[in-house]
Amino acid sequence: MSNQQDTPVILADQVQTTLTYLEPLSRKAFLALVPPSSLNNRADVDQVRQQLENMFNPVRIPLALMSKIPDLCRSSEWQITATLAETGLGWELIEIEPGNRTQEQFGLAVDIGTTTVVVYLINLCNGDILGHAADYNGQISLGEDILSRIRQAAEPGGIKRLQTLILDTLNRLIRSVCSSLIKPSQITAAAIGANTTMIHLLLGLDPASICRAPYTPIVNNPGLIPAGELGLEIHPLAPIYCLPSIGSYLGGDVIGGVLVSGMHKKSDVSLFVDIGTNGEIVMGNEEWLVACAGAAGPALEGGVTTFGMRAEPGAVDHVVIDGESGGVRYTTIGDKPARGICGSGLVDILAELFLKGIIDRTAHFTEGREEFVIVPAGETAMGKDIVVNQIDINNFMATKGAVNSATDLLLENVGCPWQDIGNFYAAGAFGQYLPVESAVTIGLYPDLPRTSIIRLGNSSGEAARQVLISRTKRKEAEAIASKVTYFELNANSSFMEKFVSSKFLPHTELDRYPSVKKKLESRLNFSMDAL
Amino acid sequence: MSNQQDTPVILADQVQTTLTYLEPLSRKAFLALVPPSSLNNRADVDQVRQQLENMFNPVRIPLALMSKIPDLCRSSEWQITATLAETGLGWELIEIEPGNRTQEQFGLAVDIGTTTVVVYLINLCNGDILGHAADYNGQISLGEDILSRIRQAAEPGGIKRLQTLILDTLNRLIRSVCSSLIKPSQITAAAIGANTTMIHLLLGLDPASICRAPYTPIVNNPGLIPAGELGLEIHPLAPIYCLPSIGSYLGGDVIGGVLVSGMHKKSDVSLFVDIGTNGEIVMGNEEWLVACAGAAGPALEGGVTTFGMRAEPGAVDHVVIDGESGGVRYTTIGDKPARGICGSGLVDILAELFLKGIIDRTAHFTEGREEFVIVPAGETAMGKDIVVNQIDINNFMATKGAVNSATDLLLENVGCPWQDIGNFYAAGAFGQYLPVESAVTIGLYPDLPRTSIIRLGNSSGEAARQVLISRTKRKEAEAIASKVTYFELNANSSFMEKFVSSKFLPHTELDRYPSVKKKLESRLNFSMDAL
Repeated sequence: MSNQQDTPVILADQVQTTLTYLEPLSRKAFLALVPPSSLNNRADVDQVRQQLENMFNPVRIPLALMSKIPDLCRSSEWQITATLAETGLGWELIEIEPGNRTQEQFGLAVDIGTTTVVVYLINLCNGDILGHAADYNGQISLGEDILSRIRQAAEPGGIKRLQTLILDTLNRLIRSVCSSLIKPSQITAAAIGANTTMIHLLLGLDPASICRAPYTPIVNNPGLIPAGELGLEIHPLAPIYCLPSIGSYLGGDVIGGVLVSGMHKKSDVSLFVDIGTNGEIVMGNEEWLVACAGAAGPALEGGVTTFGMRAEPGAVDHVVIDGESGGVRYTTIGDKPARGICGSGLVDILAELFLKGIIDRTAHFTEGREEFVIVPAGETAMGKDIVVNQIDINNFMATKGAVNSATDLLLENVGCPWQDIGNFYAAGAFGQYLPVESAVTIGLYPDLPRTSIIRLGNSSGEAARQVLISRTKRKEAEAIASKVTYFELNANSSFMEKFVSSKFLPHTELDRYPSVKKKLESRLNFSMDAL
Repeated sequence: MSNQQDTPVILADQVQTTLTYLEPLSRKAFLALVPPSSLNNRADVDQVRQQLENMFNPVRIPLALMSKIPDLCRSSEWQITATLAETGLGWELIEIEPGNRTQEQFGLAVDIGTTTVVVYLINLCNGDILGHAADYNGQISLGEDILSRIRQAAEPGGIKRLQTLILDTLNRLIRSVCSSLIKPSQITAAAIGANTTMIHLLLGLDPASICRAPYTPIVNNPGLIPAGELGLEIHPLAPIYCLPSIGSYLGGDVIGGVLVSGMHKKSDVSLFVDIGTNGEIVMGNEEWLVACAGAAGPALEGGVTTFGMRAEPGAVDHVVIDGESGGVRYTTIGDKPARGICGSGLVDILAELFLKGIIDRTAHFTEGREEFVIVPAGETAMGKDIVVNQIDINNFMATKGAVNSATDLLLENVGCPWQDIGNFYAAGAFGQYLPVESAVTIGLYPDLPRTSIIRLGNSSGEAARQVLISRTKRKEAEAIASKVTYFELNANSSFMEKFVSSKFLPHTELDRYPSVKKKLESRLNFSMDAL
C-alpha cells in the first residue's frame, strides 16, 4: 500500500488546542527510592507503592511484579522507572525497569477496516507518529464484506478462526512497525477504531445478533482489555481501548471520525460522511447529533463498474474530457499502463461527462451513446478499451442517490434546512482521494465554500491516536456515542421515495449546487433558470 | 485437631456494634434485564454494565465474561446473578449465573500459623461461620520455626517449594471445609491473617531480608491478589486480602488481634499479648499504639519442658496440688493415660507449686527438692514418672520474664504507669486455653479484675473473617498498621537489665499482683508486707 494512503490527516486545530497536556493510557514514572535502613525500614513494595500513589492513586501492584521489585531496586541503585496503565478502574503497575526510562513510552493506534488494517506506532511522550504499517485484513480470505464475515462466524469454530486471522494481521503489522526501533513488548497501550463487527470479531464475540432483528450487538463499549487477555502481542498488561460504537451499524470508526472532525463542539451544523463498503452519515452540532448508516456497496472502491479497481498502480485516477473534441486526458497511479478505473477516476469521469453534456442530469448518455471510451485499447495494459457504460453509471448513481436521500431525510427529521449546513467532513478514502470539484459537480459532496469541505483522511486511525494519548478525548468519544441519535433508514418508507427520486446530477434540487449550476450555464451559455 | 481448639471467640460487642451492614470483598447482585427490542436495543454487555454501575461504579467486565453474557441472558429469561469482587481499584465482574443466587455467597477466612493452619467457610450474606478445617502447616516438614523456614527459602528452589507446601495445605483444607456443601469455585473472596514470613512464603516472595539487617520485608501491605494469580483453588478471580503487617516481626496476625480486641478504639490503656512460637505485645488506646516482638520459644506449646507436649490426647491440661498432702489431682485431654504436659497444665503446675510453697518467689524448689512428680509411672502411658524439674521451670521463667520485661519497657517508654492498664487481651492458644487464675498467679497475665481479662481465641482467624465481610474493618486494620510504633527490644540495653531482674513469681513488684499476694498471705497466714 502506498505511503500517502495511510498517513492520517491531523487536524491541527483539533489536536493542539485541546491536548494541552498528554494523558495517555499508559504512563511512566521515575522513582528515586531510599534504601532501607534502621531509621527507615519501609518494605520495598510499600515504598514503591507510596511514591506511585503520590502521583496515581490508588495503584494496584500485581504479585508477579512484587517479587521483582527488591532485586531491581538493588541492582539499579534504587533508581527505577515504573510503567502504569489505566485499567478502567484505576492504575496498575505493569512494568519496572532500571534507571530513568521515562523518555521511552510507546503506544499503538489501530484502524481495523473491513478491508484494510493500519497500525501507527505512537510516541506517548508527545503524541508523534513514529511509523506506520498497513495491510489487508486477513479475514478477507473468508469473505470480502461484513455480511459474509458474519456468515463465516456462524460456522463451527468460525469466530475463533476470524479472530485468529485479524490477530495474525495485527501482530504481523506490529512486528513490522516496531522493526528495529523497539521490541513489541515495549508498547504499553493501544487504541482501536473499527466498525462494530470488526470489534466483535477481534474480541472473539459472536457477531450474529448484529445482522438479526433487533440488530443488537453484544457490546458497544467494551472498556479496557489487557492485551494478553486478547492475544495482541504487545506488553501483556497493556490496556486496549476500543472506540465506543453506538449500535450494529454505527461503529467506533464513525464515532472516532466525529471526534476528529470536532463537529460535536461547533455551533453551526456539520455533515460527516464516510462511504466505504458501508456508508455512514452523521449530522449535527454541539447540541445534537443524528446519524444513519447502510450498506453503500463498493462504488468508490472500484467494485461496481466494469473496469473498476482499487487505487493501485495502473488505476486511472484523474480524467479531463475536452468539451469540443471529446478527447480524454488521464493519469494513472504510478504512471503505469492503464488497467482500470479507481474511485477518484470514476468521480472525475462522471463529472466531466456531465459537464461536457455527454450524460444528462438524469445521468443517461445523450445522443444514443451506450458507452464512453476512457482509454483506448492501445494504451492499456490488457490491449482492450477501458470504457464506462450506462450500467456502470447507474450503479454509481445508486450509491450517490442513497447518500443524498439519507442526508435529506436526516435534515427533514431534525427540521434543519439544507442551507444551514456549514461544514462538510469527508472521512476515509471517500475523503482522502476524491477530486473535490468533481465530487461537488456530481453531488457527492455538497456545494459549500471549498474551505468548509474538510477531508479527514483516516479519521478512525487518527481518533485512535487521540484517545490513546488523551483521557479527555476518551471522555469526549464516549459523550459523542451517548449523544448520537441513530436513525433507522430501512424502517423509513420516505427513504425509498427519496431514493427513487434522487437520481439526478448533481441533485434533484439544482439550486443546492450554485457552483455546478454556474459551470453548466457557462457551457450552455444560457441561464438554467430559463429551463 | 479438636473442635474447641479452632473455634474463634467472637467478641459480640466488637462485631455487632460496628458491622451495621456487610461490605464483603465479593458481592452478588440480581439483575432483571430487558430483552433487546427495536425500541430498546442496548447491547447485552452494556445493559449489564449499566445495571451494575447503578450499584457499583465503575465496574470492569473481563473479556472472558463478555462472551458468556448473551447466551446466559437468553437461557435464563434475562434474570441473572452477577458476582462482583473488589480489585483494590474498584469492582470487577467475576461470575455470572442464571436466576437469583444472591443467597449463596461464600468467602474464606484463613489463619496461617507457623505451626497450624485454620480455614473458616463464611456465609457472606450474614458473616456466619458455616464450617472450619484445621491442620498442621505443611511447611513443618522443612522446619519447625520461622528461622528454619527462612533458611530453607534460601536454598535453590526453596521459595517455590515452601509456597507449594502451604498452598497444598490450604487447598486440601478448602476441599475439606467445602466437602459436600459447595464447590470450592463458589468461594469468591478470601482474607488471611498470618505473620510476615508466612505471608511472604504464601506469596512466593523472598523472606531473606526479614531476618537480615535492617530487617525490612519485601511487602507489608500486598493489596488484593486474585486467587488464580496465587494458586489458591477457589474462584480464580476471587480477591485475596492479607491483613497488613508493619514489619518483619509484627505481622497481620497481630494487627488482626488488635482489630478484634477493639483496643484501638478504647480510651483506657489496653495490653494485648500473643505468645506462640514468637511473642508479640501491643499496648495502647485510641490515641497511641506501641508494640514489640521477639522469639518467645515454645514455652507454652510444650517445647521447653522435659515432658512438654502439644495439646493433644494424653496431655496433662489441669493440675491441682493438695497443700497438706502434696497429692496431685490432674486431668488429661481426652481422658487418655498421661503422656506429657501441655501449656495449660504447666501453668497450673507452676501456680500450684508456688501457691503451695513447693517453689519460692524466685521459682526455685524449696527444701532441696530437684523435681516434682505430677503423674506417677503407674498412671502414665509410658510407665514412667511425668515430672517437672528445676531446668523446666527455669526455661519457662525465661519466657515469662521476657513478657514481663517487654511490657515494663513499653510502659516506661510511653511514660504510662502500670496501674493505668485497664484491659488485658490474650490472643491465640496463649489466650484460649490457659487457666486464668493460674496464669495470673505466676504473673503471665496481669492481676486485673477478671472481667477485664479477655481471651480472644484465634483472633487472627477472626480478624480475617471480619475484614472479609467488612470494608470498614479493612480500613481499620490499615489504620492500626499505620498507627503502631514498633519498639526494637534487642536494640535496647535496659531490656536485658529488666529481663535479668524479672525472674520472680509473680513479678519483681509483688504489689502489682494484689490477688496473688492475698492468696499467699492466706496460705502463710500473715501479711507479706511484713517481710
